[in-house]
Amino acid sequence: MAEITHPTIKDGWFREISHMWPGQAMTLKVNQVLHHEKSKYQDVLIFESSDYGMVLVLDNVIQCTERDEFSYQEMITHLGMFAHPNPKKVLVIGGGDGGVLREVVKHECVEEATLVDIDEAVIRLSKKYLPGMSVGFQHPKVKVHVGDGFEWLKDKQGEYDVIITDSSDPDGPAEALFEAAYFELLNNALREGGVITTQGENPWIHMHIILELRKACRQIFPVTEYAWTTIPTYPSGQMGFAVCCKDPNRNVKKPLRTLSRDEEDKLFKYYSKEIHEAAFVLPKFAEKALR
Amino acid sequence: MAEITHPTIKDGWFREISHMWPGQAMTLKVNQVLHHEKSKYQDVLIFESSDYGMVLVLDNVIQCTERDEFSYQEMITHLGMFAHPNPKKVLVIGGGDGGVLREVVKHECVEEATLVDIDEAVIRLSKKYLPGMSVGFQHPKVKVHVGDGFEWLKDKQGEYDVIITDSSDPDGPAEALFEAAYFELLNNALREGGVITTQGENPWIHMHIILELRKACRQIFPVTEYAWTTIPTYPSGQMGFAVCCKDPNRNVKKPLRTLSRDEEDKLFKYYSKEIHEAAFVLPKFAEKALR
Repeated sequence: MAEITHPTIKDGWFREISHMWPGQAMTLKVNQVLHHEKSKYQDVLIFESSDYGMVLVLDNVIQCTERDEFSYQEMITHLGMFAHPNPKKVLVIGGGDGGVLREVVKHECVEEATLVDIDEAVIRLSKKYLPGMSVGFQHPKVKVHVGDGFEWLKDKQGEYDVIITDSSDPDGPAEALFEAAYFELLNNALREGGVITTQGENPWIHMHIILELRKACRQIFPVTEYAWTTIPTYPSGQMGFAVCCKDPNRNVKKPLRTLSRDEEDKLFKYYSKEIHEAAFVLPKFAEKALR
Repeated sequence: MAEITHPTIKDGWFREISHMWPGQAMTLKVNQVLHHEKSKYQDVLIFESSDYGMVLVLDNVIQCTERDEFSYQEMITHLGMFAHPNPKKVLVIGGGDGGVLREVVKHECVEEATLVDIDEAVIRLSKKYLPGMSVGFQHPKVKVHVGDGFEWLKDKQGEYDVIITDSSDPDGPAEALFEAAYFELLNNALREGGVITTQGENPWIHMHIILELRKACRQIFPVTEYAWTTIPTYPSGQMGFAVCCKDPNRNVKKPLRTLSRDEEDKLFKYYSKEIHEAAFVLPKFAEKALR
């Protein structure tokens, strides 16, 4: 079988060059390219790295690696879930690797978790190559719908307690998921006291996007906060999240429910009640920009 | 004049490949190499990057870039300085770029700040190419000594309130600065209630070094804590610090002195009293490993 090649891989190293983070590139050593296709929406690449396990790349941008994905999946999920007193019905927009679903169903109060991802290729290939994440699809409470999140939301009124938008960057199929019209749909789809979290880029390189995102969120939600997590294989080593709530009196910066340390130890590799609060503390330059 | 070349730079990109972080490499676009020499201790490279300003590289490892150095310099300095009630005499081991000195003298209580760096080349070249950091050398309270920090400390007894070890990784001239014998010297050189901070690698990739470092610190200091900061151009995007104190009753996780928000805004780009506390909150996997 001929070796699969890809323009981002040269001399055995994958390089994440993009106009979204000019002049810098995370570089990972490649053992073997396992799959490459152009799906209906994006370029999909799966390779086995030397030290980060399997890596999923969409449109030349790393989406997850087996070694550090838990940080992103846990934080985008549990910041929102623990900011809700009793989330029963949860919606995930994007997240086709299944990792967010895996985290959502750790909350026993959840009765139904629905995932809507536009690209069946991501779901299909994650099931084949990323079993640690796609295990989320196997849970009996999970429903999967392949389609446009925007369309899915259009007729939803007061249905969900938490909606998590696990999208790629606003430079391709996910662009609309960073705009006020989308947050309006999320707001309508939420039950009273509902919470959303959404991928929110990195203050070190994307303050302009974060300011726009915040503006869009603030038009719709009375509570709009920003948190972040460390994650080595995302650009500059961190990733942020917008966390918003319909209830003007909710403090999403503190978990409304907490687990014992033993329970936390069993369930999480990144999240803890202390990390929840610390995630909302931003460095001076970002805190000033977001005042 | 012939263009300066360096083995780490290929096709206009610098690549930070090292056995200390196998399979991954931060990659920065190079506008121009300004200087390269083999000093008595290490390979010293200075290049202008396309988006991170001037970059100082020692033994093929990025030491600082003009764009993000403030995070490291502020945090390694102020975590220790604000954990002391009234630091008057401060010692910096390493830190030949001058950035830590720049931060130390922001504390008006400081009467004398001494820097001891083994490599005159780093000081000389920082003064030429990194004016934003080497400005620290110009302050009237600053004294500079070119020499071995280990030797410098040998006859010092109860002299310093805070000692900051701003070293490179434990894989070259800085190796001895991660061992118990060194912390013994630091302890002896500290006044009562004295505090040290030291470069402490990254939990995502160096938990084994951090555990050794912690063990060495715990043999000497009754208070040994670990904090971290985000910084895009250090491996995996973060850098940690050991913060230790001679006083068994000191809680170094909380600043002992605080400034008004206006003062903080003027002085800092990364540090704040809130960031001080949040820096000691580690993700579950690291918190578990360090219990």
